[in-house]
Amino acid sequence: MPEAIPEKADAGPANPQAQSQTFQKPRMGCVTLVGAGPGDPDLLTLKALKAIEGAEIILHDALVSDEILALVPPSVALIPVGKRGYRPSCPQQNIDALMVRLAGDGYRVVRLKVGDPSVFGRSGEEIATCEAAGIEVSVIPGVTAASAAAADLKISLTHRAHARRLEIVTAHARNGELPDDLDFRALADPAATVVIYMGKARLPAYAGKVLEAGAAPTTPVIAVENAGRCDTRLAQGTLIELPDMSGLGDGPVVILTGAVARARLKQSAAKAAVQS
Amino acid sequence: MPEAIPEKADAGPANPQAQSQTFQKPRMGCVTLVGAGPGDPDLLTLKALKAIEGAEIILHDALVSDEILALVPPSVALIPVGKRGYRPSCPQQNIDALMVRLAGDGYRVVRLKVGDPSVFGRSGEEIATCEAAGIEVSVIPGVTAASAAAADLKISLTHRAHARRLEIVTAHARNGELPDDLDFRALADPAATVVIYMGKARLPAYAGKVLEAGAAPTTPVIAVENAGRCDTRLAQGTLIELPDMSGLGDGPVVILTGAVARARLKQSAAKAAVQS
Repeated sequence: MPEAIPEKADAGPANPQAQSQTFQKPRMGCVTLVGAGPGDPDLLTLKALKAIEGAEIILHDALVSDEILALVPPSVALIPVGKRGYRPSCPQQNIDALMVRLAGDGYRVVRLKVGDPSVFGRSGEEIATCEAAGIEVSVIPGVTAASAAAADLKISLTHRAHARRLEIVTAHARNGELPDDLDFRALADPAATVVIYMGKARLPAYAGKVLEAGAAPTTPVIAVENAGRCDTRLAQGTLIELPDMSGLGDGPVVILTGAVARARLKQSAAKAAVQS
Repeated sequence: MPEAIPEKADAGPANPQAQSQTFQKPRMGCVTLVGAGPGDPDLLTLKALKAIEGAEIILHDALVSDEILALVPPSVALIPVGKRGYRPSCPQQNIDALMVRLAGDGYRVVRLKVGDPSVFGRSGEEIATCEAAGIEVSVIPGVTAASAAAADLKISLTHRAHARRLEIVTAHARNGELPDDLDFRALADPAATVVIYMGKARLPAYAGKVLEAGAAPTTPVIAVENAGRCDTRLAQGTLIELPDMSGLGDGPVVILTGAVARARLKQSAAKAAVQS
């Protein structure tokens, strides 16, 4: 993949005046961590789009959608560095090293991530690595999956009649299992909305733990596949009778639990009653 | 304000063919709840911008920034319906009634909110009112303040070395006081990042409660004013020695607590040491 990247040493600044002012010191590159949002290109922010269009090299996650990658100008080197559950992946330290090397060589590097970089995006490690190497780094926030799923479901995550608190967790620890150090009592709170990222495979284990911690068995659970895209699919259930996800595909799934989801289940039922 | 809105009955569909097909039934309007993000127009999504440009009437919160309102085409009726702490405000039921009446009259109504509509945006009530009135309603998610603040601070809200859980709460109940039914033990968890919306005035009361519930007094606290805008200002401290917010202005403030904020405090200190 490095073959695709032009030799930066030959390029130099476009403006010779600027070059002489900087004593011919090669330009220092930079890294911008960009949140691509849930996948629909229309849910990119204007700032994210400008960063994509202005990049020289984009390192992107496997889950960044084809529609968004189609917006990348042909002159930009596009390097997939995706980690995806249960598939061969690029180790985090390789991504970190590549980012630092390319920015050190003078490139404007965009690190393109699904959703918002600050929510389960490993941005902490990447920012720390860049800063330790003296590389200028900035972050462009994006629409996170919880917001996209709530918009699809037309619910408020914090409806004041139902929820005092929004909790966002992952059900996928480093080893692929459910993290064992989650505060399940806090997640069992009937006045909380919980949004679980990367939770499809570990939902039964998660549900067992929160039920043990005192959650009501009838707590509504909605799984949303491809939140914020045109091909959104839902599966609905409760903590004791989990949603049947066999009808979902292999898109990313975000799972909502809590009383705010009940409002939506009721509406779905009412709509079905009217239509039948 | 209704004087500014043209009489819809006279307008009719632009296409006479379409009119005859619908038996001259007046067009039904719709309501789109749109997340405007943190305030920087560049942090609008493309979809939000299209909705703003395609609206006939926009009902907007007081906190929607002037820069974003400047993007509204002159032909669009712009109606402020802001609620803002400690100032005269438009009661929620009036907003609901106005929205339903205008959409019922056939207008494409955009309800423009700061951040993401599903996070402390009262969207639940507004969606329910529209649906009860048979008005078509949809939601466009936005970048929420927690994501914007994390991007400004260049931190991950869920750094796997520091946080197992992200919790988002408001410190502002209906009566303006700190909600007394928050699960303060859950918020005191040292492995959680907590982001407090509308927390500026109630931070001392909040800190007292989580300290009582067992939070470490040295838990870092960062207040971010105008997150995601060019005039971001910070105040830093801990739960026991709260940030001095006297240097902040009267912009919206979001408060982060937890170990992920410690990483940023350390970096600020290191930077200050290098610069001095």
